[in-house]
Amino acid sequence: MNLSIIHYILASVLQFCGFFMLLPYFVGVYYREPQRFCFLFVALICIVIGSLGKLIKPKSKVFYAKEGFVTVALSWILLSLVGAIPFVLTGEIPFYVDAVFEVVSGLTTTGGTILSDVEALARCTQFFRLFTHWIGGMGVLVFILAILPLSGSYNMHLVKAESPGPSVGKLVPKVKNMARILYIIYIVITLLETISLVIAGLPVYDALTLTFSTVGTGGYGLLNSSIESYGTAVQVIIILFMFLCGINFSIYYLLLIRKPKEILKSEELRTYIGIVIVATLAIAMNVKDLFQNMFEAVLHAMFQVVSIMTTTGFTTRDFNLWPSFSKMILVLLMFCGACAGSTGGGIKVSRLIVLVKSVKNEIVRMIHPRSVKRMHLDGRPCPDGIIQSIRVYLAIFVIMYLTSVLLVSFDNFSFETNCTAVLATFSNIGPGLDMVGPSGNYAAFSPFSKIVLMFDMLAGRLELLPMLVLFSPKTWKK
Amino acid sequence: MNLSIIHYILASVLQFCGFFMLLPYFVGVYYREPQRFCFLFVALICIVIGSLGKLIKPKSKVFYAKEGFVTVALSWILLSLVGAIPFVLTGEIPFYVDAVFEVVSGLTTTGGTILSDVEALARCTQFFRLFTHWIGGMGVLVFILAILPLSGSYNMHLVKAESPGPSVGKLVPKVKNMARILYIIYIVITLLETISLVIAGLPVYDALTLTFSTVGTGGYGLLNSSIESYGTAVQVIIILFMFLCGINFSIYYLLLIRKPKEILKSEELRTYIGIVIVATLAIAMNVKDLFQNMFEAVLHAMFQVVSIMTTTGFTTRDFNLWPSFSKMILVLLMFCGACAGSTGGGIKVSRLIVLVKSVKNEIVRMIHPRSVKRMHLDGRPCPDGIIQSIRVYLAIFVIMYLTSVLLVSFDNFSFETNCTAVLATFSNIGPGLDMVGPSGNYAAFSPFSKIVLMFDMLAGRLELLPMLVLFSPKTWKK
Repeated sequence: MNLSIIHYILASVLQFCGFFMLLPYFVGVYYREPQRFCFLFVALICIVIGSLGKLIKPKSKVFYAKEGFVTVALSWILLSLVGAIPFVLTGEIPFYVDAVFEVVSGLTTTGGTILSDVEALARCTQFFRLFTHWIGGMGVLVFILAILPLSGSYNMHLVKAESPGPSVGKLVPKVKNMARILYIIYIVITLLETISLVIAGLPVYDALTLTFSTVGTGGYGLLNSSIESYGTAVQVIIILFMFLCGINFSIYYLLLIRKPKEILKSEELRTYIGIVIVATLAIAMNVKDLFQNMFEAVLHAMFQVVSIMTTTGFTTRDFNLWPSFSKMILVLLMFCGACAGSTGGGIKVSRLIVLVKSVKNEIVRMIHPRSVKRMHLDGRPCPDGIIQSIRVYLAIFVIMYLTSVLLVSFDNFSFETNCTAVLATFSNIGPGLDMVGPSGNYAAFSPFSKIVLMFDMLAGRLELLPMLVLFSPKTWKK
Repeated sequence: MNLSIIHYILASVLQFCGFFMLLPYFVGVYYREPQRFCFLFVALICIVIGSLGKLIKPKSKVFYAKEGFVTVALSWILLSLVGAIPFVLTGEIPFYVDAVFEVVSGLTTTGGTILSDVEALARCTQFFRLFTHWIGGMGVLVFILAILPLSGSYNMHLVKAESPGPSVGKLVPKVKNMARILYIIYIVITLLETISLVIAGLPVYDALTLTFSTVGTGGYGLLNSSIESYGTAVQVIIILFMFLCGINFSIYYLLLIRKPKEILKSEELRTYIGIVIVATLAIAMNVKDLFQNMFEAVLHAMFQVVSIMTTTGFTTRDFNLWPSFSKMILVLLMFCGACAGSTGGGIKVSRLIVLVKSVKNEIVRMIHPRSVKRMHLDGRPCPDGIIQSIRVYLAIFVIMYLTSVLLVSFDNFSFETNCTAVLATFSNIGPGLDMVGPSGNYAAFSPFSKIVLMFDMLAGRLELLPMLVLFSPKTWKK
């Protein structure tokens, strides 16, 4: 294990963390809030310690996948531990474990809160809280790679470990350029949504912060009622941008370089759109009696479907009160998640496509043992390695999911609460059902359960392996 | 598809079904119950139609795995449809779908009932109901193979399709002899338990029928309170025999041919024992305040653990009232199930061992990409084919499980009810939680949900593939 390079990258991460915290400070300056000094204080300490740490240059540039996993996992843990300090200093979340939970939930774009009254937060704290969604959505290390004059073989390992999806396709030969392209697309989408929301009547602060939460598919809101009390125009804009950020960002790159034909080949995109439509209609039919007209039913069904499937977690209705069938569709969408290479979490549509196809293939092989049929994805043969790794992913997912539910059940809440709390954190959604439903929160869990759920959020956001590799004794054996 | 041979085997199955139904008739003769004539009537019809059907000899002996799956799936469906008729004729279960549910639940050794008062049944009906567990436990076609003078390549395909477990090891070269050995061991265990229960003070009828339910790991009981009102001696005997029937029967064969060293090699057996001990202690600690002393707590914890893990489903306490942690351990055991090659259901311990090991291997491969480590099971290298098929099994299990929960949720019962009802049927256990908990039953589900649950019971008992192959359009294409 090349500890010197990990140390160097972590110092860079800490430095950046300091710069990020200047943003809420400036917001606090604008609104003349005393809480701003807490952010300034932590920002300066981060920048100083980070800069000092960077003085020790790495001795060796050896960097394998193992180092990539460990670095990414440690970076995210470091960011969470440091990011929680301002919440404690401002006194808005006095208990440190709760503050860490809130930041992990923010960075991983989960959006499950321990706060019962988010409207009581200062504007600078609120800004920081929602900004964690934005930076966590596309990735902190991807951001650093896009900016810093780093180079070397380790870039790809870092991007691979931090990006969502079974396979990170290289859009362009240089990883640095790829990171830049991703962030440029991301910033353009952010600006588009902010402008749309301002046109729809929101103040600039509200528009920008809600956009952070939408495009990062996070789910933290400015109001206790999430998106329920905004007008229809705002709700429609948010549906649109949640949906857009659930799509693989390489699709936008293909649009940019004018290869629309390639886009049509994407089975994942077609399936994603198909699931949204079918789930929306199924729920709308199921809940239509709860609404005044069919338009309302479709609007709110679609909002909840897109929000859950993209793993954002905004709500316009308390779906915990909906019939079991609708709730179960939402639970299935929680497992499913968004497209690979998007800012969303969950198992991902493309993994499910491969799983379903490989199951079908297996059944055909049972019926015709001598038939040899290669599996195709997007019109190309799918490599065996990817099929294997997706099956292993599912096995790890199921084992970790069930273990977490067992650990959380120590708190003696309901079966529904335990199952969906773990699912909603593991898939980075936010709201689950029952106690953690849209009108509830995660405050009542014990510190032990909160730590389990934090682990799940990080493991879910980083696609399981980095956290497992970090905590595997084999990693640290010489 | 060789339909003529499938037709021939189905005719044999129907014939045997007729002979089986003479047993409750004789019980009815002994107790002078009028319901016996319903059994006699159906028995005679089955024997006549079966014998007539067997007059048409198969044209070809071509028999592949495909034919094996289809034959087994159709045989079980046929048995269920026919076995339900006496219940309707006696008027004890007037609604045919309910009667089929009861027989499917019996044959698949699930033991989940739609009856709220099982004590009201006639003794001959009760005998038939519990006998379905016995014959379903070891397998109908295995029974027919052991008795009938059939021979040919199709024997192995039938045994493979009907027996529980990822791989059916050939104990002896001839499948026919293997089927005989399995049934001889099974009958010896049945006699041992019956005698033990008689010594413990039960009447012969009660001892024999409860033994059917225990050794088949079924779960239907004679009393509405399941095993709760029997004495401690009876409860301990039942724990012991449930435990023994959750073990791979090839272990007993190894004992018979005096190869005890081979037994010690079995990782599955050691893990099975380990899980029972750990789960018992964890639950006993968790529920100790509900009992007068630690012995009681351990006894009832162990009863529930062994009953659920072997997928029997007997209960001595309503575990639905236990704390969430204990309930969640039981839910995990519902997934887990017993050993391969036993009469129990579920995913099976050996499959979980392979899954966990392959996940560990995969993580090590991430850390050391160049390491090549073969996975071992029972001290021997585990073939890649088995690892693959187990991963596919898990994928099918998860997809079918979640789909079933969605379909069942149409009935608008609680999340806990839906999740555990499907799990308890899919793993052939019987009781779940909430509405289908130990004090509840499956009566309230709609006919549609009952059909879904029946499909799950059959798919679970036959290890997924036969039912999927039967309903796959590819099977029936020329």
